[in-house]
Amino acid sequence: MISRPDLPSLPRNIVDAAVRAALDEDLGLVGDITTNATVPSGAFAQAVIAARKPGVVAGVALAEAAFRAVGSDVSIAIEIDDGKTVKPGAVIARIAGEARTLLTAERVALNFLGRLSGIATLTRRYVDAGAGTPAKIVDTRKTTPGLRALEKYAVRCGGGYNHRVGLFDAVLIKDNHIVAAGSISAAVRAAKVAVGHMTKIEVEVDTLAQLEMVMREKVDCVLLDNMKPAELSKAVKIVAGRCLTEASGGVSLETVREIAQSGVDLISVGALTHSATVLDLGLDFIASPNQAVIEA
Amino acid sequence: MISRPDLPSLPRNIVDAAVRAALDEDLGLVGDITTNATVPSGAFAQAVIAARKPGVVAGVALAEAAFRAVGSDVSIAIEIDDGKTVKPGAVIARIAGEARTLLTAERVALNFLGRLSGIATLTRRYVDAGAGTPAKIVDTRKTTPGLRALEKYAVRCGGGYNHRVGLFDAVLIKDNHIVAAGSISAAVRAAKVAVGHMTKIEVEVDTLAQLEMVMREKVDCVLLDNMKPAELSKAVKIVAGRCLTEASGGVSLETVREIAQSGVDLISVGALTHSATVLDLGLDFIASPNQAVIEA
Amino acid sequence: MISRPDLPSLPRNIVDAAVRAALDEDLGLVGDITTNATVPSGAFAQAVIAARKPGVVAGVALAEAAFRAVGSDVSIAIEIDDGKTVKPGAVIARIAGEARTLLTAERVALNFLGRLSGIATLTRRYVDAGAGTPAKIVDTRKTTPGLRALEKYAVRCGGGYNHRVGLFDAVLIKDNHIVAAGSISAAVRAAKVAVGHMTKIEVEVDTLAQLEMVMREKVDCVLLDNMKPAELSKAVKIVAGRCLTEASGGVSLETVREIAQSGVDLISVGALTHSATVLDLGLDFIASPNQAVIEA
Amino acid sequence: MISRPDLPSLPRNIVDAAVRAALDEDLGLVGDITTNATVPSGAFAQAVIAARKPGVVAGVALAEAAFRAVGSDVSIAIEIDDGKTVKPGAVIARIAGEARTLLTAERVALNFLGRLSGIATLTRRYVDAGAGTPAKIVDTRKTTPGLRALEKYAVRCGGGYNHRVGLFDAVLIKDNHIVAAGSISAAVRAAKVAVGHMTKIEVEVDTLAQLEMVMREKVDCVLLDNMKPAELSKAVKIVAGRCLTEASGGVSLETVREIAQSGVDLISVGALTHSATVLDLGLDFIASPNQAVIEA
Amino acid sequence: MISRPDLPSLPRNIVDAAVRAALDEDLGLVGDITTNATVPSGAFAQAVIAARKPGVVAGVALAEAAFRAVGSDVSIAIEIDDGKTVKPGAVIARIAGEARTLLTAERVALNFLGRLSGIATLTRRYVDAGAGTPAKIVDTRKTTPGLRALEKYAVRCGGGYNHRVGLFDAVLIKDNHIVAAGSISAAVRAAKVAVGHMTKIEVEVDTLAQLEMVMREKVDCVLLDNMKPAELSKAVKIVAGRCLTEASGGVSLETVREIAQSGVDLISVGALTHSATVLDLGLDFIASPNQAVIEA
Amino acid sequence: MISRPDLPSLPRNIVDAAVRAALDEDLGLVGDITTNATVPSGAFAQAVIAARKPGVVAGVALAEAAFRAVGSDVSIAIEIDDGKTVKPGAVIARIAGEARTLLTAERVALNFLGRLSGIATLTRRYVDAGAGTPAKIVDTRKTTPGLRALEKYAVRCGGGYNHRVGLFDAVLIKDNHIVAAGSISAAVRAAKVAVGHMTKIEVEVDTLAQLEMVMREKVDCVLLDNMKPAELSKAVKIVAGRCLTEASGGVSLETVREIAQSGVDLISVGALTHSATVLDLGLDFIASPNQAVIEA
Repeated sequence: MISRPDLPSLPRNIVDAAVRAALDEDLGLVGDITTNATVPSGAFAQAVIAARKPGVVAGVALAEAAFRAVGSDVSIAIEIDDGKTVKPGAVIARIAGEARTLLTAERVALNFLGRLSGIATLTRRYVDAGAGTPAKIVDTRKTTPGLRALEKYAVRCGGGYNHRVGLFDAVLIKDNHIVAAGSISAAVRAAKVAVGHMTKIEVEVDTLAQLEMVMREKVDCVLLDNMKPAELSKAVKIVAGRCLTEASGGVSLETVREIAQSGVDLISVGALTHSATVLDLGLDFIASPNQAVIEA
Repeated sequence: MISRPDLPSLPRNIVDAAVRAALDEDLGLVGDITTNATVPSGAFAQAVIAARKPGVVAGVALAEAAFRAVGSDVSIAIEIDDGKTVKPGAVIARIAGEARTLLTAERVALNFLGRLSGIATLTRRYVDAGAGTPAKIVDTRKTTPGLRALEKYAVRCGGGYNHRVGLFDAVLIKDNHIVAAGSISAAVRAAKVAVGHMTKIEVEVDTLAQLEMVMREKVDCVLLDNMKPAELSKAVKIVAGRCLTEASGGVSLETVREIAQSGVDLISVGALTHSATVLDLGLDFIASPNQAVIEA
Repeated sequence: MISRPDLPSLPRNIVDAAVRAALDEDLGLVGDITTNATVPSGAFAQAVIAARKPGVVAGVALAEAAFRAVGSDVSIAIEIDDGKTVKPGAVIARIAGEARTLLTAERVALNFLGRLSGIATLTRRYVDAGAGTPAKIVDTRKTTPGLRALEKYAVRCGGGYNHRVGLFDAVLIKDNHIVAAGSISAAVRAAKVAVGHMTKIEVEVDTLAQLEMVMREKVDCVLLDNMKPAELSKAVKIVAGRCLTEASGGVSLETVREIAQSGVDLISVGALTHSATVLDLGLDFIASPNQAVIEA
Repeated sequence: MISRPDLPSLPRNIVDAAVRAALDEDLGLVGDITTNATVPSGAFAQAVIAARKPGVVAGVALAEAAFRAVGSDVSIAIEIDDGKTVKPGAVIARIAGEARTLLTAERVALNFLGRLSGIATLTRRYVDAGAGTPAKIVDTRKTTPGLRALEKYAVRCGGGYNHRVGLFDAVLIKDNHIVAAGSISAAVRAAKVAVGHMTKIEVEVDTLAQLEMVMREKVDCVLLDNMKPAELSKAVKIVAGRCLTEASGGVSLETVREIAQSGVDLISVGALTHSATVLDLGLDFIASPNQAVIEA
Repeated sequence: MISRPDLPSLPRNIVDAAVRAALDEDLGLVGDITTNATVPSGAFAQAVIAARKPGVVAGVALAEAAFRAVGSDVSIAIEIDDGKTVKPGAVIARIAGEARTLLTAERVALNFLGRLSGIATLTRRYVDAGAGTPAKIVDTRKTTPGLRALEKYAVRCGGGYNHRVGLFDAVLIKDNHIVAAGSISAAVRAAKVAVGHMTKIEVEVDTLAQLEMVMREKVDCVLLDNMKPAELSKAVKIVAGRCLTEASGGVSLETVREIAQSGVDLISVGALTHSATVLDLGLDFIASPNQAVIEA
Repeated sequence: MISRPDLPSLPRNIVDAAVRAALDEDLGLVGDITTNATVPSGAFAQAVIAARKPGVVAGVALAEAAFRAVGSDVSIAIEIDDGKTVKPGAVIARIAGEARTLLTAERVALNFLGRLSGIATLTRRYVDAGAGTPAKIVDTRKTTPGLRALEKYAVRCGGGYNHRVGLFDAVLIKDNHIVAAGSISAAVRAAKVAVGHMTKIEVEVDTLAQLEMVMREKVDCVLLDNMKPAELSKAVKIVAGRCLTEASGGVSLETVREIAQSGVDLISVGALTHSATVLDLGLDFIASPNQAVIEA
């Protein structure tokens, strides 16, 4: 019996590199000059990361890594794991350690956790809007430059699924590829010759006529671009299970349910990553640096 | 007579490094397998980057750098500079070059341009909301990890101003620093001893009582945290021009005008960078790869 | 009509980074002390890269990049492209430029070209051995650490095909994954839940009994591990076109034809990358540095 | 009394950087998707790295580093050290830890260990072929780009010796340097002026006439290029101990003994690094992930 | 009551990166070949870092990091902290660990500690020369390329203060900026428009006439370039506390006191970093490697 | 006839990496805020780098690379090459280009050129002090961390020679190595076994008795540590040309001539790199930004 892994693992080097880059830009050459000037190096403190708004948590490993990268002696207890929902006031993590470390790492930790949780939260809203239909909500390549691995992970935390990671791991033939290749058929066949047997092929179509042409080739998925729900339903019937169907374009929280009811397998939503806003979180000190020092 | 520089320069190494990282994550070890399979290496194409929604442009240098990093022979004409407003359909840039280059770099170019323009557009809305008041709209450190330089530049493109860059270039004394130092006075004096003469000092206060205590020290700016407009007006009167006043917390497009009318010098808005959504842009091919090849 | 791309493109940043690393280790902190001491900086030279043994060329872009990284004014004409066969004495490239540049970059250029051509040459021998059968020769992850992108490209130059690039772009369920998951069925289903819709799934089996179990799930490919040709034929019949079949293990130039005749779709050969030897190449000066200087 | 160090130390940063690069290319942005989907994060396992073929071990530190870089809690016991011979079935190392770690790091660990052991094994065969003669077997700069430090270490593990590391740590004057400098004498003198007193100088000659010219200068070593054994013997007599003699070119396992008997001090063999094939090794699980979890 | 932090913290990543780069250049691809050949890997040793000349200590964290980066088991006790004075013979740190580690890291550790202590020592001499006056001694951007953070820290250890870190954290308007902007007034106003409210502005003047023009604008500091003490006194009177005054140019240990007595707030001294010589330090073994091994 | 290369070449990647690091630390995330605010982007300027004090030039390539890295259109003419002497007022280089580029790169360019020229100048003083004797002045590993390649090049520009580059390219057996190995003889023999045939071996001795022991082994050089001139003369006689002799320790401009007259081959001087002060240089605008813009 296997405990089914609900979430992918974030490779450790991805986490470490992202946190390192964020700290480098915040600390510069001279570090946190305010904290170093005002907080004695012997002072300890305790704090919690708490939600200010409801949402779905994603990225606790990054927050943890931020504190540990600044001060090696900090102890962190994660109270709410990635993928779980939080209500306002919920404590996501408890941190204890040198007061300087907590103050210096605070913003980087919150910037990661807030952003990724924002993506997870928005994803969950799309997933919930399509609940009861077979359609999966999937992300796109419209991610923040440099943070794709983290943002695709956040989509999973929100209950969504991942489309291809980049230009390298799957084929997605769009209109300009077809024009350049001469025809849908020529493009698909060129792709089959070029890529390995472990690489899937998807073709984008704008019309049902194009869809018919794609169906003459064997592909893994067809992207139905900017079709209305009624047209999507027709497309699903034409495909008839011969490959996966993906609706894309014009998807919003208002339209997603109707699109999902068309019977498509997948709905890709750029907004998951390009238009999520931050989940409001805060770091609250439960033992002030000063008190802690007295107790220590 | 000097042509006043409306916008800061983006250091070239910042642009190059950001573009390089974004391309690395999109291309992986094997590149754009779809384009390489379907588009002949001899085909040329022309395209435009066009706005789909109204907004303010920011980041054309990044889009340009993305195309150039993929294919050295591409030619790019910027039609609308950073900081200018666009209407739907407006052409921001014209690109001509190898069709493979245009297709491979498209997403990275748009991801940068869309995100930064989104920040500039939201900033402009805040600036417009406060128009006619003396208050400047300023950003915070609530930026996307790894993209702070770019995002702070985008705020400038939208007509906003920049707060400190990181923890290293200015002092901002908050409540926990004060607790650790023992008093507002002790914290300010410790900071003055510690930092250089070219470093400014700001102190955060929650109440007018704290403000009075800050005024006993000479500081460059006081951050008035989460105060209502009426309280802000009182604070401005207490300060009486002895230092700059910054309102922070609870700022939204609905509240910003009333806050601005309190007389504060600055209003810092985390949302500029943590809750901007992308400006909708697209790459439209005006000469298809195939046609271009015939003409070439 | 599209000129079918026979070969994938090597991403420019992959080439540049590999060449940079190779030059760094050969030049150290002080460079080519022999050449700098003995060759005047004004001397020009011409040379050819010529094959000493028959084989298949792969990696001319790396050789070219090596010379250009050392001296920006060098001119290089590629006479024989990647993927072409050469006989002893054949001129692969002609290089003209500063004599110092040619001498300093020579070894790095030849190390790349010789090694990648060695892989292409060995691949071609496997491909030729299976000629006339439907089986494709594919590589494995048994590549030189740090050079996977280049070596997989060389396999393509030799007429082979690429298996998954790494652990990230396709699922390959092996015996230990099955043990951990509890059963073949549990492992396949767990993978389908976890990975995106653009990710293929392959399962490794040792016996026909296991193969029957895999066939109850829908997978993209089955890896038939260490089976004799007769057993492979039975496996191909059991699969009956429901997915791809890949033979693996115990493949040599002696056995590959018989394996290919079993009807499998793919034969993966670790030796392509882990046991190829270098193709013997040399840099021959056709105008000595001294003569060139006189003529210049 | 000193325990003579049979082997050089591999600098820790060289090992770490090589392992990091290899893992980066194998894990990409999303890691080992198969293992993460099928193996529960709580499962432990034990495995051995065992030889499948006879050979000489080299690179256990890299295998160890690969496992540790993936999972910090793994324990590793090296049973057979670098430089020792193994028979088929011999256990080189025992590894215990999280099953995910063992499965994810397996290929990188084996790729390093197999390649370096392959070089050590081939080196040992050359060394054994020349046993009883005074000639040392030495490597060349014909190493895999990016892995020179590791491969030169592997040559030492096989009983060979190292020639210069790169272009920077010793002078080797070849024919084109001589042409450029005007004469052997001019080249040697230019080198002596240019390089420091701790840098050795070697000159390559093709004929005994050239050798006589070299002997008029004081050099540390002379490289006798592509000479037959009889000519080598004459060269050794001409040199008469005034400097070291190195045979190079046309060296194979068949010819090395006769060359060694010519009396040369050194025989350099490019094949050690450019034509070694991998030593066949495997990772065998001795406690399956599932059993381990039950016992834990 | 706060224990006033006399010294800034050196960000950990700055220390680690500097030590890593220094070790990389000293160890190359093959490490400390002398120590590895002559010192058995089992030998332990103890040593002290002792001052040979009087001075002020700076950089013990870098020395410590150097030893730890080479061998993880070394133990280090800092006897004299940064900022403290030492007499010849004083023990700054005690180190115990593997003899190989101590010998291999010795030079890098001493190079950092000697150089930074040299800067601190020279700074202290300038500070002492101005003792009793209100003038602070401050550094400049004339630092060793790549080591600015460390050298500015060393200035603090010597009792000096830091001017701006780089071109990015404060405005310093010099003569050519004024020429380009058209006037002092135009330059100052352009700067105020361009930079954030947390950025200070300083203007350089050569004459009292220019100073008068600067005084019509509100600036944070005025740099009085190459003025004699008498002229400086006049300048201080003109400024009359409206901003800080900084003397610069022609400052030496002979002239600094007279300059300080002019009443300026700050004296910037390029020599602190561009002309400091190393503080003479040594590593003395108190238990030889051999003895240690016997005792172990 | 060969134009004898007086100076080694600085590898291009060393120059580029050093300049990049220096610019990164000076420009931070937002660049030269003063210049960008006050100098219009269309303004051109001309400037010269001129010597303020007499000395020897070293590092013009770094100054040139600094300007080019900031602005690609700058034109630079080197008037005085590395290794040449300059008098006060001498123009070393002429630079023309965008005024912003000249102002932004100025400090980094001067920091490199001033520091390296300072080393070359001090080296020349030592070389001149020993003129007429056979002794060569050589450097040590007491270089600025991270800048060893550049500083060793500067020593060459001053007429000095280079000792080993790092711990990796030559053996230098010191007292603690001897203690660990058990005896001088054991240490030398261990080194000979361990290192390649292209690696030289030097042994440090404190007494003539030790020297006699070293002479029983064949080594390339002997380091005579802290011996007085008379003792050095005796040592030279004992060695009698069997290897090189190097005097080290207690060398100053006052003592170097007498040491050189002892007949030693080499005198190593740590001060060349650890105690050189900057050569005073300046960037003088010969056409102000404003005038240039008018003319352009």
